[in-house]
Amino acid sequence: MSFLSSFDKFQHHLSRESRTRGNGPFQMLDRIKCNKDIDLISFSGGVPLPSKFPIRNLSVRFPETGYFEEEIENRYPKEVDVSFDLGKDKSENNLDFEGALQYGQCQGIPELVNFIKEHVELAHSPRYKEWEIKLTNGNTIGLDYCLRLLVNYGDSVLIEKYTYPAAITTMSPLGVKFVSIDMDEEGMLPESLQGIMENWDASNGPRPRVLYTIPTGQNPTGSTLPIGRRKRIFALAQKYDIIIIEDEPYYFLQMDSYHGNVLASEIQKQDSTQNIGVSSFVNKLVPSFLKLDTEGRVLRLDSFSKLIAPGSRLGWITGNPLFIDRITRAAEVSTESPSGISQVALYAILNHWKQEGFFLWLQELQRTYTTRRNALLQYADKYLPNSICSYQIPNAGLFLWVELNKDRYLFSSQQKSVPEIELEIFQALLQKGVKPVCGQLFMAYPENNDRIFFRFAYSIAPIDKFEVGLQRFASTLKDFFILEKEELQAMI
Amino acid sequence: MSFLSSFDKFQHHLSRESRTRGNGPFQMLDRIKCNKDIDLISFSGGVPLPSKFPIRNLSVRFPETGYFEEEIENRYPKEVDVSFDLGKDKSENNLDFEGALQYGQCQGIPELVNFIKEHVELAHSPRYKEWEIKLTNGNTIGLDYCLRLLVNYGDSVLIEKYTYPAAITTMSPLGVKFVSIDMDEEGMLPESLQGIMENWDASNGPRPRVLYTIPTGQNPTGSTLPIGRRKRIFALAQKYDIIIIEDEPYYFLQMDSYHGNVLASEIQKQDSTQNIGVSSFVNKLVPSFLKLDTEGRVLRLDSFSKLIAPGSRLGWITGNPLFIDRITRAAEVSTESPSGISQVALYAILNHWKQEGFFLWLQELQRTYTTRRNALLQYADKYLPNSICSYQIPNAGLFLWVELNKDRYLFSSQQKSVPEIELEIFQALLQKGVKPVCGQLFMAYPENNDRIFFRFAYSIAPIDKFEVGLQRFASTLKDFFILEKEELQAMI
Repeated sequence: MSFLSSFDKFQHHLSRESRTRGNGPFQMLDRIKCNKDIDLISFSGGVPLPSKFPIRNLSVRFPETGYFEEEIENRYPKEVDVSFDLGKDKSENNLDFEGALQYGQCQGIPELVNFIKEHVELAHSPRYKEWEIKLTNGNTIGLDYCLRLLVNYGDSVLIEKYTYPAAITTMSPLGVKFVSIDMDEEGMLPESLQGIMENWDASNGPRPRVLYTIPTGQNPTGSTLPIGRRKRIFALAQKYDIIIIEDEPYYFLQMDSYHGNVLASEIQKQDSTQNIGVSSFVNKLVPSFLKLDTEGRVLRLDSFSKLIAPGSRLGWITGNPLFIDRITRAAEVSTESPSGISQVALYAILNHWKQEGFFLWLQELQRTYTTRRNALLQYADKYLPNSICSYQIPNAGLFLWVELNKDRYLFSSQQKSVPEIELEIFQALLQKGVKPVCGQLFMAYPENNDRIFFRFAYSIAPIDKFEVGLQRFASTLKDFFILEKEELQAMI
Repeated sequence: MSFLSSFDKFQHHLSRESRTRGNGPFQMLDRIKCNKDIDLISFSGGVPLPSKFPIRNLSVRFPETGYFEEEIENRYPKEVDVSFDLGKDKSENNLDFEGALQYGQCQGIPELVNFIKEHVELAHSPRYKEWEIKLTNGNTIGLDYCLRLLVNYGDSVLIEKYTYPAAITTMSPLGVKFVSIDMDEEGMLPESLQGIMENWDASNGPRPRVLYTIPTGQNPTGSTLPIGRRKRIFALAQKYDIIIIEDEPYYFLQMDSYHGNVLASEIQKQDSTQNIGVSSFVNKLVPSFLKLDTEGRVLRLDSFSKLIAPGSRLGWITGNPLFIDRITRAAEVSTESPSGISQVALYAILNHWKQEGFFLWLQELQRTYTTRRNALLQYADKYLPNSICSYQIPNAGLFLWVELNKDRYLFSSQQKSVPEIELEIFQALLQKGVKPVCGQLFMAYPENNDRIFFRFAYSIAPIDKFEVGLQRFASTLKDFFILEKEELQAMI
């Protein structure tokens, strides 16, 4: 494939493992073409007989476009059934259902792949035309694929100072050494990245060639990298020949600003604004690294986990054709493809909704999580003592990241480490009946950290428990920290 | 977990990658228990809101137990619908449907896991009680997990001389060196394994510690290892401290002997024998390595691909708890779990069928593929020239493995390699309109091979094309081989 040659400049990024991946053995034989006039009898694939697939029919029910607001909790006013029948042909089913249940879908069901490509085009308008996608079983294996594509044992990888724990535990056994980039309330600091690359000490091994980031609604900090920083970081990636892996499960859960101290009922109303069209919706989103990428330097991980359901185990990687081809080869001899049954279920929904309907659904999700963020922030503002707790307002994602003021820790004479202090507070919180996550989980080397954090997810707890939850949190703090007198009084 | 200690003797088998796998970071916090009297408000997991899973209902239709014979091709006389509704609770759905669509199913849906464990108990009655299973996305990633569990870069792995191509391409990029065990019509030769281990040349690196085998209906040879050899190989594995990975997608596709030269209509009748009960069915199967395993030395790979549908991407690994725990940790940071939607679809069927019904379904599959094997063999007996073609009768699986007599190759003066000869014949076969697979694909080092093979899958080609297919194959051979006069005459 000659068009690949323009991506040959990325060949040196391939890991030892990826470099040795040949094409699947059957592909070599498949390239030999037969006489076209003859009806070929194939004894080739060791694949089972579709008449012995017992799944004769699969039906999926889902909310109809335009009826995405729940009537009462968990009930939609109008729902649609879409059904696939093994006895019917491709045109009746709107896809090759038999094919979806059979082998050979490593690239994914063509109709679903096309839908996702159209979505990527609408959402990111990539600036080089050869970009490809590969369906994955979610972003966690997506990251695993990217790492095995790019990283050799002992290599250094750039990460945000606070990051997704499973990313750390995915990377560690591959022998990755972590290099943390400093963050503030807007995410990664470009100058920190630049400093690391400029002052790299060669005795630590080769300079990092991979940056792993969650740019939007970052886990755990909730920060969203502004456009200016994205541009500067991409320019640095070009300068230092870094591949950017952007892990973006929360990208579409971007939110309007928080207006503070408004009653929940009003917030609700205020959020139920009119839907906007695809291009207005997309224009409101902060541009992705993929959108800034002119040459194929970004591998973007997207997932249906937060958009449809985690149990679908379905996501995709977008990137240059060299990388996607190598990832596909790796998938052929591991996961093969995501579940065809999952693919069919999601295609049923997406094909009915069309691109416009899917973007309307994303707006509904934005409203849902905005309402929840606003509710949590309202109680955080009300109950968390200012002298102890500081937090930034998340403008995307599912998380509130709260720092506790270590200078006011009561038992500093005991010389406890921050991880010990966090665990001690965590145990007390559990006794009070509230459970956030300790900050130490979000660091590659927590032993080097001297700041106390807790992460609150506002995505799943019952919204009517937010108030009590934060009250419990605040009242636990007084046993560990020196509070201002008026703060203590307010708690009574 | 103190019971693990009896499996500590396998610790030294863990690869560098596996050894460094900690438990998932959240598990540490989850071990800290809260006050039981209090209603805990959890802000812990960054998981999405189930009321925003658009899959409101999933329905699956499948053949009813007792109605597994197709009326006409691809139609079953009685079918059942089972449906799961997000609005209904666990008892009405027979499983936690919301949970299946959510995160946190790394071990698999408990009800499905239990069904599979019962099935394993019935089919293999493992001889040590601590065995565990881990659901996988099929045997290919199952093998990948086992390799990353056990093998370091540069290690040698024992394989059958002819083996599954994707196994080779899974192993190669991990730096595996292959050591081939000789085979005959009954599969691996224990004396070949013994010879390799006894005479191991340490200059080739450490002695192999892993054996990868497809014992039943082997791909590509169709051979099935008899019980005596299994026992001898297991004893050798104990003697030389080898872990056996048995990859068994065809295990339940075992067949009665082939009676030769019977009309297809009679074969059909003859195969439609009465169903037998679970224990009679299991007793007719050759015992698995898992069944012989007294100590946890076997990792068994099972898959629903040939039993339900490949598109389910669902299988499982059975093994000792040390290995399964490490594999689970690896899965947590890669695939997480197989698709919850797939799991629900399969559970719908299996739970309705019950264990007995599932074994009846397996008998139906046996009959289906036995009919197809018999049909192919009948035409092979009739059309393939004895002086050129030799093959063994497969008693399980999907494949007929045909060797061509190299001594009668017409152009031996041209000094072509066997891979070249195979490709040349393959191209001619395609021109005639028949497509088997070249033998060279099934070898780790085809350049060292001097025997000509073709593999025929009888699982998927239309059964009424078998005759023409083998006629085309036979008539191609006469352009490449010296046939007996009467064989040539028979072809006219």
